[in-house]
Amino acid sequence: MKTTTDTIHKFIQQKQNRINTVLRDIIPTSYPPLLHHAIEHSLFGSCKRIRPFLVYTSFELFDNNLDKIDPLAAAVELSHTYSLIHDDLPAMDDDDLRRGQPTCHKKFGEDIAILAGDTLNTFTFELLSSTLPHHFTPSHCLDAIRYLSHATGGNGMAGGQIYDLYPIQKTPTFNHLKQTHHLKTGALITASVVIPAILGGASKTEKEALTQFGHHLGLLFQITDDILDVTSTQKVLGKTPHKDILQDKTTYVSLLGLEKAQQFAQEEADQAKDALHYFGTQQEPLTQLVDYIVNRKH
Amino acid sequence: MKTTTDTIHKFIQQKQNRINTVLRDIIPTSYPPLLHHAIEHSLFGSCKRIRPFLVYTSFELFDNNLDKIDPLAAAVELSHTYSLIHDDLPAMDDDDLRRGQPTCHKKFGEDIAILAGDTLNTFTFELLSSTLPHHFTPSHCLDAIRYLSHATGGNGMAGGQIYDLYPIQKTPTFNHLKQTHHLKTGALITASVVIPAILGGASKTEKEALTQFGHHLGLLFQITDDILDVTSTQKVLGKTPHKDILQDKTTYVSLLGLEKAQQFAQEEADQAKDALHYFGTQQEPLTQLVDYIVNRKH
Repeated sequence: MKTTTDTIHKFIQQKQNRINTVLRDIIPTSYPPLLHHAIEHSLFGSCKRIRPFLVYTSFELFDNNLDKIDPLAAAVELSHTYSLIHDDLPAMDDDDLRRGQPTCHKKFGEDIAILAGDTLNTFTFELLSSTLPHHFTPSHCLDAIRYLSHATGGNGMAGGQIYDLYPIQKTPTFNHLKQTHHLKTGALITASVVIPAILGGASKTEKEALTQFGHHLGLLFQITDDILDVTSTQKVLGKTPHKDILQDKTTYVSLLGLEKAQQFAQEEADQAKDALHYFGTQQEPLTQLVDYIVNRKH
Repeated sequence: MKTTTDTIHKFIQQKQNRINTVLRDIIPTSYPPLLHHAIEHSLFGSCKRIRPFLVYTSFELFDNNLDKIDPLAAAVELSHTYSLIHDDLPAMDDDDLRRGQPTCHKKFGEDIAILAGDTLNTFTFELLSSTLPHHFTPSHCLDAIRYLSHATGGNGMAGGQIYDLYPIQKTPTFNHLKQTHHLKTGALITASVVIPAILGGASKTEKEALTQFGHHLGLLFQITDDILDVTSTQKVLGKTPHKDILQDKTTYVSLLGLEKAQQFAQEEADQAKDALHYFGTQQEPLTQLVDYIVNRKH
C-alpha cells in the first residue's frame, strides 16, 4: 500500500515540476505589469496541478513525447485558474483565500481580478492556436480548441457555475447536483483526458473510455471537495473550509450524510477505474490517481 | 453630400439586418436560461454593429459570398459585447446604461454579468473553431483564432482596459493615451478588417493596408467617443455622457481641447482613407464609413 502511495506521489511530483517549469515562462512579459503580476500570483502557490497531470498521463497512453503536449497541459491549468479567480470574486463565492494565499481580488482589487481571469481565458486559445500546430495537424488543433471552448463555456464550466449559484430549485435534488458538477468540474476534467487522446490519434473506443473516466473522476473530485469542506482545516485545505455549511449550500454531504457521501465517492472511484480496463496496465498512473483523489486531504 | 450619407446609412442598415439575423439564433438555447437571457439582453438593444460591418465590408474586397463570413462577423460582435459587459461592472467603469437599456449587471446582478461576459468570450472561439472550417482551410481558421485571441487578450483589448483604469502615469501623455486606445479599441477594430482579409486570401500588401486602416479607424473611433462624451446627451448616446469629466479622466478632449481633438479626428480619418488607396473604388463603403464615424452623433 505504501509503495502505491509513494509511486503516485512521485508521478504527481514529476508532472508538477514539468508543468510549473512550462507555466513559469508562459505569460507574455509584454502584458501590462499589473496584469502580469496578478496572473503570476494566481497561477502559483500551493497547487496540485491535477488537470495538467491528466493531460500528460492521458497523452502517454498514445505518445511518450510530452514536449508536444506541454501547451495543452498549460492551457487546462490556465483555464482552471481563470475560473478560480472569477469564482472567488465577492459577487460570486466571495473567497479571501486560495492556494494558500490571498485571492486575486484581495491582493490586486476586483477590476484587476476580472481582467486577469478574462486574459487567462482568452490566452488559452491564443496559446493552443499558436503552439499546437508545431506538432499536430491543423484539423486536430481545431478539434482541441473546439473541445476546450465547449467544455469551459455555457454548456460546460461557466454554465455549471450558474447552476451552482442559482440552482434549478431551491433545494436541488441529487440529480440536479450531479448535473451541476458534471458541468462545473467534470467538463474540464473530462477535456483534460479526452483532448490529449484526440491529439494522440485515439480510436473512438479509446475516446469513449476516457470520456467515461473523466465523467466519474470529475464527480469524484466534487464529492471529495464537499467531504473535505466538512472534515478539513484551513491550513491543510489552503482555502476557507466550512463554506458550504456557512452558505447553507446543498452538497453531497448535506444530501446524503457524510458516510453515504464517502460511499458514493468510492463507487465513482470504482467506475472511473473500470472505464480504464481497455488500456490494460498502461493506465496504472490514472488508476493510482483515482485512489489518491479518494484519499486526498486537501 | 446627402447622397453619400444616404448610401452609407443604407450600407450600414443592410449589414445590421444581416448580423442581427445571424446573432438572433446564435446563443445555444441549451445554456442555463438565466445565462441565455442575460446574453440576449446585452447582445441586442440600440447597436451600430460597426465591427460586423467591417468584417463583411473587408471580406467583400476578396469574396462576395458573405455566408462564409457570418460566423466571424458574429464573433467580433460577441467579443465586443463581452468587453462591454465587463467594462460596465461596478469594479470597472460602473455604468448603469448601455445600448439604451440597463447594463447587464443592473438587470441580472454582477455574478451573472461576469459569467455572461466569460461565456461570450469563450463562445467566440467555440463558434470560430466549429463553423469557419465549413468554408476555409483548417490552417486559415487557426490563423483567425490566433489573430482574434491576440487582439482581445493582454496585449490587446484586455490589456488596454488595464492601462485605461491604471495609466502608466497619473496624467497620461498624448502618446500613452494613443497606446492605450490602440489596444483597448484599435486591436479589435483592426482584427475586424484584417481577419476577413486573411480568410479571403489577401496578399501581404493588402493585409498591411488593412492593418493601417484599422489602426487609424480605431483611434478615430476613440477620439470621436471622447468628443461625444462632452458634446452629446444620454438620449442620443444610449449610455451615460460626461463620464470622463465626472471621473476626471484624461481624454483627447482634456489633453488637446475640443477644437484640436476634432482636428486630430479629421487627420486620423484622412490617414485611414489614404491606407485604402490600394483597393481603388472597391473600398468605397469603408471610406464612407470613415466619414460616418467622423460625423457620428452617437
